[in-house]
Amino acid sequence: MAFNIGLLGLGTVGTSTAEILLDTAGRNSLLKEINIKQVGVNSLDKPRKVEFPEGVMTTDLEEIVKDPEIDIVVELLGGLEPARSLILQAIANGKHIVTANKAVIARHGDEIYTAANKAGVYVLLEAAVGGGIPIIKPLKQSLGVNRIKRVVGIVNGTTNYILTEMSANGADFDDVLAEAQKLGYAEADPTADVDGWDAADKIAILAAIAFGDRIKREDISCEGIRKINATDISYADKLGFVIKLLAISQQSQPDSLEVRVHPTLVPKEHPLANINDVYNAILVEGEPLGQVMFFGPGAGGGATASAVVSDILNIAGILKSSGKTHKLDPLLGCSHQHYAALTPIKDIETRFYVRFLCKDVPGVIGYLGTCFGNHQVSLESVVQIGFQGELAEIVVVTHDVPEGNFRQALGEIKHLDAIDSIPSVIRVL
Amino acid sequence: MAFNIGLLGLGTVGTSTAEILLDTAGRNSLLKEINIKQVGVNSLDKPRKVEFPEGVMTTDLEEIVKDPEIDIVVELLGGLEPARSLILQAIANGKHIVTANKAVIARHGDEIYTAANKAGVYVLLEAAVGGGIPIIKPLKQSLGVNRIKRVVGIVNGTTNYILTEMSANGADFDDVLAEAQKLGYAEADPTADVDGWDAADKIAILAAIAFGDRIKREDISCEGIRKINATDISYADKLGFVIKLLAISQQSQPDSLEVRVHPTLVPKEHPLANINDVYNAILVEGEPLGQVMFFGPGAGGGATASAVVSDILNIAGILKSSGKTHKLDPLLGCSHQHYAALTPIKDIETRFYVRFLCKDVPGVIGYLGTCFGNHQVSLESVVQIGFQGELAEIVVVTHDVPEGNFRQALGEIKHLDAIDSIPSVIRVL
Repeated sequence: MAFNIGLLGLGTVGTSTAEILLDTAGRNSLLKEINIKQVGVNSLDKPRKVEFPEGVMTTDLEEIVKDPEIDIVVELLGGLEPARSLILQAIANGKHIVTANKAVIARHGDEIYTAANKAGVYVLLEAAVGGGIPIIKPLKQSLGVNRIKRVVGIVNGTTNYILTEMSANGADFDDVLAEAQKLGYAEADPTADVDGWDAADKIAILAAIAFGDRIKREDISCEGIRKINATDISYADKLGFVIKLLAISQQSQPDSLEVRVHPTLVPKEHPLANINDVYNAILVEGEPLGQVMFFGPGAGGGATASAVVSDILNIAGILKSSGKTHKLDPLLGCSHQHYAALTPIKDIETRFYVRFLCKDVPGVIGYLGTCFGNHQVSLESVVQIGFQGELAEIVVVTHDVPEGNFRQALGEIKHLDAIDSIPSVIRVL
Repeated sequence: MAFNIGLLGLGTVGTSTAEILLDTAGRNSLLKEINIKQVGVNSLDKPRKVEFPEGVMTTDLEEIVKDPEIDIVVELLGGLEPARSLILQAIANGKHIVTANKAVIARHGDEIYTAANKAGVYVLLEAAVGGGIPIIKPLKQSLGVNRIKRVVGIVNGTTNYILTEMSANGADFDDVLAEAQKLGYAEADPTADVDGWDAADKIAILAAIAFGDRIKREDISCEGIRKINATDISYADKLGFVIKLLAISQQSQPDSLEVRVHPTLVPKEHPLANINDVYNAILVEGEPLGQVMFFGPGAGGGATASAVVSDILNIAGILKSSGKTHKLDPLLGCSHQHYAALTPIKDIETRFYVRFLCKDVPGVIGYLGTCFGNHQVSLESVVQIGFQGELAEIVVVTHDVPEGNFRQALGEIKHLDAIDSIPSVIRVL
């Protein structure tokens, strides 16, 4: 029994995927039964690292998704269109789908999975989150027997590299970003990474799987790392924290889910604090399991291709065992019907780190305490930590407080005469 | 479609398994289709934390493995017999098997899997390694597309707890062991843990899955932590290492596999160096993936039950999708036919830490250098690090060398007049 796949896209991940499929020695023997029937590309003239027999490469991507001999369509184009339309056409033609495209799943997952369930085909997406780290299948197949309480991850390699470099060298954001762009760790337009959108796509996918409801991508609260600076990294360090861009999803109230992305002070002894450079890690907390963490390369052609090919093999394994007249395995399909109610950001409870520039230190500590206290914001520490010219820097870390209360207190504090400005507000894990 | 399971054993893991199955709210909805038909125990009179309807509990374990209405037998007895016989009987009667029993799989896996393949049933064992950490299914389903180079793990929680405590408090082995026994982290007879046998069972299982060959359990080189002392932990710390009991499997030569368990100096910046207390972690290295690591609670009723129940659900999911007339999914079955050739310990290449007690420091460093050099053992560092009474302590760290050469050199060195004794030899990662 052999399986024909059609590959849409032959960029970095597509090339690595083909390399694994064309060089199977020493790998799982089921790979020998996978045949690349067609590869869809924009241009046949571009030089390629892999060679295919005459006729395999084509610029007619619609031909691939309609080809009756193709069993699995592997979408590695990225972006929303034409990926979305091609996936939907392939599903309508009874193809199983493997994709690495977090954006199209996070934004059009409802439409895609509704069509897939109707057609009785799988849409697998291990490569969409965490690159080569197995996280999607473990969440679906292994961890769902638990009551999941929290999924929290470092899921964007570019920003983790930037923050790691800023921490190691006391460098500023713009300089490190420029360096990362030179090294190929950041795109020419870094917006999707540094503003947290990529991480938001990923946590939307993880939260949907972990908590069993659809997530409205546009309702996710999302804050990037552009405002993080060497000063706050250094002060966080003194207080026992590192700064990471975390994607967080947790069920803090029975009928409402928190899903958010933001820079976060992480205690140095926390497992996520030691995840550096372009590595990713996802921590899952559940009952009765406790905490498990998955760590590995969150990007790169080879690592991502490992996840893509594992999905191809999983579908092949299922088809081999059950024949082509199977029903969907409920652990691998997606049957979410409802959108989760997302907790508004003002209602989440978290700790905060906030840095004030003040004119009058002895007076201001009293003001701060009173003003926060009036809004039921209790403080863990207040430290006069440095100076900027004649202004004193005071850093406050709160206990867990409703974000709404904290923002109201801050709104009053910023009008105090003794307060020059409030340069930084960062949440604390 | 509902599935009947028969549970063999109602100890800590059995009880937690029943608790998950009997309280399904907030967990994967497929759990509602799993019915505990029979529970086999030694005594019906013992007080239990879970209650079953009249007639579910029985002391007749053979009745369970023969019951035509039972689809899946869940073996949580532990130990070799009667676990092995009951598993084989259940297989002969067409039952799928879920087990947490590393010992029976590591020693009788060949017999059990041969029978299971003949009968067309699954034998799943996620809980046998790493407690609640998903590692078996990710290795089978996600990582096998890579050429696996190395699997290395901290897979025994008891010894990791003991070593963590010894490191944190400068305490000696015997004292920490006694404390661990009091806390329930170590058994009254701690042999299987502290002598590395439990870790050897687990690396036998991981290596078989990762490298696709059967492993002869009795050929695994296995050394425990009884000889580790506060002095070496402190010197290792000064040199930038922590001491961990590692289970290692790697393909260093094309036709030969290293599988070994021993205390190891791990560089502090290595991901495994930060795994403390009773936690486990398994690091897998492959091409093109790179390194991924799985971290979590390696023991405990709830965590282990999470893995057991995930295996039950996986079988139920497959049966639901394919009906009961399926073939085995090649990614979840086990079709190893041959035993791996294991590299003799003298032929492995590794770094060594060795501590000498010497009478004459200036002279001895020359002797050591010459003697190691004569056996092609090159040295990374030689440090006169402390004193014990009138004797100087010299610590040598070698580069990667064949163990045989190193042992020959050491055999000569110990006869030198200037050497009083060689209290410690520990491998270095």
